[in-house]
Amino acid sequence: ASIVLLPGDGIGPEITAQAHRVLQKIAAEFGHDFEFSSHLIGGIAIDETGDPLPEATVEACRQSQAILLGAVGGPKWDDPTAKTRPEVGLLKIRKELGLFANLRPIKLFDQLVDASPLRREIIEGTDILFLRELTGGIYFGPSGRTGSGENESASQAMVYSVSEVERIVRLAAKAAQGRGNHLTSVDKANVLEPSRLWRQVAARVMETEFPDVKYDVVLVDAMAMHLINRPKDFDVVVTGNMFGDILTDEASMLPGSLGMLPSASLGSDGPGLYEPIHGSAPDIAGQGIANPLATILAAAMLLRHSLGLETEATAIEAAVSGVLESGLRTADLARGGESIGTEAMGDAVVERIK
Amino acid sequence: ASIVLLPGDGIGPEITAQAHRVLQKIAAEFGHDFEFSSHLIGGIAIDETGDPLPEATVEACRQSQAILLGAVGGPKWDDPTAKTRPEVGLLKIRKELGLFANLRPIKLFDQLVDASPLRREIIEGTDILFLRELTGGIYFGPSGRTGSGENESASQAMVYSVSEVERIVRLAAKAAQGRGNHLTSVDKANVLEPSRLWRQVAARVMETEFPDVKYDVVLVDAMAMHLINRPKDFDVVVTGNMFGDILTDEASMLPGSLGMLPSASLGSDGPGLYEPIHGSAPDIAGQGIANPLATILAAAMLLRHSLGLETEATAIEAAVSGVLESGLRTADLARGGESIGTEAMGDAVVERIK
Ligand SMILES: CC(C)[C@H](C(=O)O)[C@@H](O)C(=O)O
Ligand SMILES: CC(C)[C@H](C(=O)O)[C@@H](O)C(=O)O
Repeated sequence: ASIVLLPGDGIGPEITAQAHRVLQKIAAEFGHDFEFSSHLIGGIAIDETGDPLPEATVEACRQSQAILLGAVGGPKWDDPTAKTRPEVGLLKIRKELGLFANLRPIKLFDQLVDASPLRREIIEGTDILFLRELTGGIYFGPSGRTGSGENESASQAMVYSVSEVERIVRLAAKAAQGRGNHLTSVDKANVLEPSRLWRQVAARVMETEFPDVKYDVVLVDAMAMHLINRPKDFDVVVTGNMFGDILTDEASMLPGSLGMLPSASLGSDGPGLYEPIHGSAPDIAGQGIANPLATILAAAMLLRHSLGLETEATAIEAAVSGVLESGLRTADLARGGESIGTEAMGDAVVERIK
Repeated sequence: ASIVLLPGDGIGPEITAQAHRVLQKIAAEFGHDFEFSSHLIGGIAIDETGDPLPEATVEACRQSQAILLGAVGGPKWDDPTAKTRPEVGLLKIRKELGLFANLRPIKLFDQLVDASPLRREIIEGTDILFLRELTGGIYFGPSGRTGSGENESASQAMVYSVSEVERIVRLAAKAAQGRGNHLTSVDKANVLEPSRLWRQVAARVMETEFPDVKYDVVLVDAMAMHLINRPKDFDVVVTGNMFGDILTDEASMLPGSLGMLPSASLGSDGPGLYEPIHGSAPDIAGQGIANPLATILAAAMLLRHSLGLETEATAIEAAVSGVLESGLRTADLARGGESIGTEAMGDAVVERIK
């Protein structure tokens, strides 16, 4: 299997290196043949080619079976008047590869429950899988400016089509069947026309194709509340691009350790893209102290979803859990206690894989 | 001063009645002359007139100095094929009266700190004032459907003009000057054109008109995180209509008691509209157990912002604090302990006003 590595910016290269080692160990232990190649994306791609997503990168990704991304962005490329930005690379690769579904599991590691900002009785046992629509909605809607002076105005449209809603809802319903058999769709149908279409289509898909799956709908504002006071009530949650952006980031705070959360972006065929949900953390880049576990868990998702290697994925997850159990922590998890570096954390996971 | 009461649906009439009594007590104690009149809005207005916001209500509001609203909506009017809905009344009155600024203070009553889903050390001392733009953005943008079958699509545009951004940012900056002198503007400028305009205009207003106010910008997804893990870092937060809808509802969970949170919707002149942020709670309507304190605190905001009666507003707030101090709780606050009903809570507040 061929795997593309996109280390990107900031701590991206450091954390990707550890996930790479973990995948190599999996290949050796389980007798697989993984070919790795590394390509440019984000700020470093702007610096070297002027383009946050060079054509060579897109081509390599298209030829691959799966992609592991570190992180993109940093203050160096933040100038608002710049011609392009690292994030453009991210948005473009999602679109180019048709990665319409972003999967974000929000799961608490028992060993870290005290890191949560929420009271233990509220958060304990939380296990939510978000599916965020990733190539439609207001992110990719037509935009522009008109008028001038006081009357200048800017607009961008949220657009959803029937087929866009169908495919993400189907994927979410299938995911629910493999878990708690409960799907929640989030929209703002009391105000937005695209949400009304979303709600109609979702209801039809669920009624006709998944009558066995428990299904409900929640308004986005209400969902922003429920995530905080009753996160345990949700199993799989499906929503549009922008609502998903906000809600998954909100939900990512619940475990109290951003450094543990992976995500997968999938299309109907072709390679999937896997990455930690945290950013490029430019403030600690190059210091060897970043937590590589989210990226390592993203590599586990890669094995599961793109290569169909469930046993191997579980082996990685068990190794991570074992490492936490043994008390090892990177600085972000240590709460002022003793900590180890990025590479030592990689070593600890690699050692435990068999 | 003439005050319009819009009791609305569900528990609306019960909680509005208690706030009405509190305002009457204020009038008596402080020697003011308040004239009250009650009008239809929401589901009850649909039932009686076919219109969730009858013209007579709009007219009465226009003639008044301030409006106190209970809540609108309920399952009775939830049929998706219905010609109109209670919420339409709410959106329309905001627009008709030009109520472009929604103010939502998120403040913890010391007596209720243990009701928060967040750990005490994170939440204690939180005191945020949100200003949500209320008559623009995607809520009021052009919308429609095109195509058919699989290709049918629905759209609605987020639109912001320079003048819309200026007026809400100015109001927010002024509010900041009267508090912690710190303003945070929330947008999604890395993706959305209206957010880029918002960010430019806000920066210009702050630089040229409020150079003394500490000012920063945060992306909406990041803000959804920060509210949970460092809510104390914010003073005044200004944002657009939809982001404000989501973030203020998220923030409303922080104190752990929706029943304590009021809001105010203001225009550049004319009456302001005051209401609790919670809904019409149809499940407990008519039982006399709803918590009237959010509506009573909304009445305090009414005195402060629309009638300029700061002393009287503070008297209400002190009375509410005194009631909590004395241990009285409605069911929603009692956490299974002893509780009193809506009217008894109203009595307790009225008694303490002098
Ligand atoms: C960087 C940005 C464009 C991106 C998004 O909003 O999609 C990020 O926030 C994410 O969630 O992956
Ligand atoms: C009822 C609905 C239209 C309304 C809104 O989203 O503005 C409500 O959620 C609110 O926040 O006041």
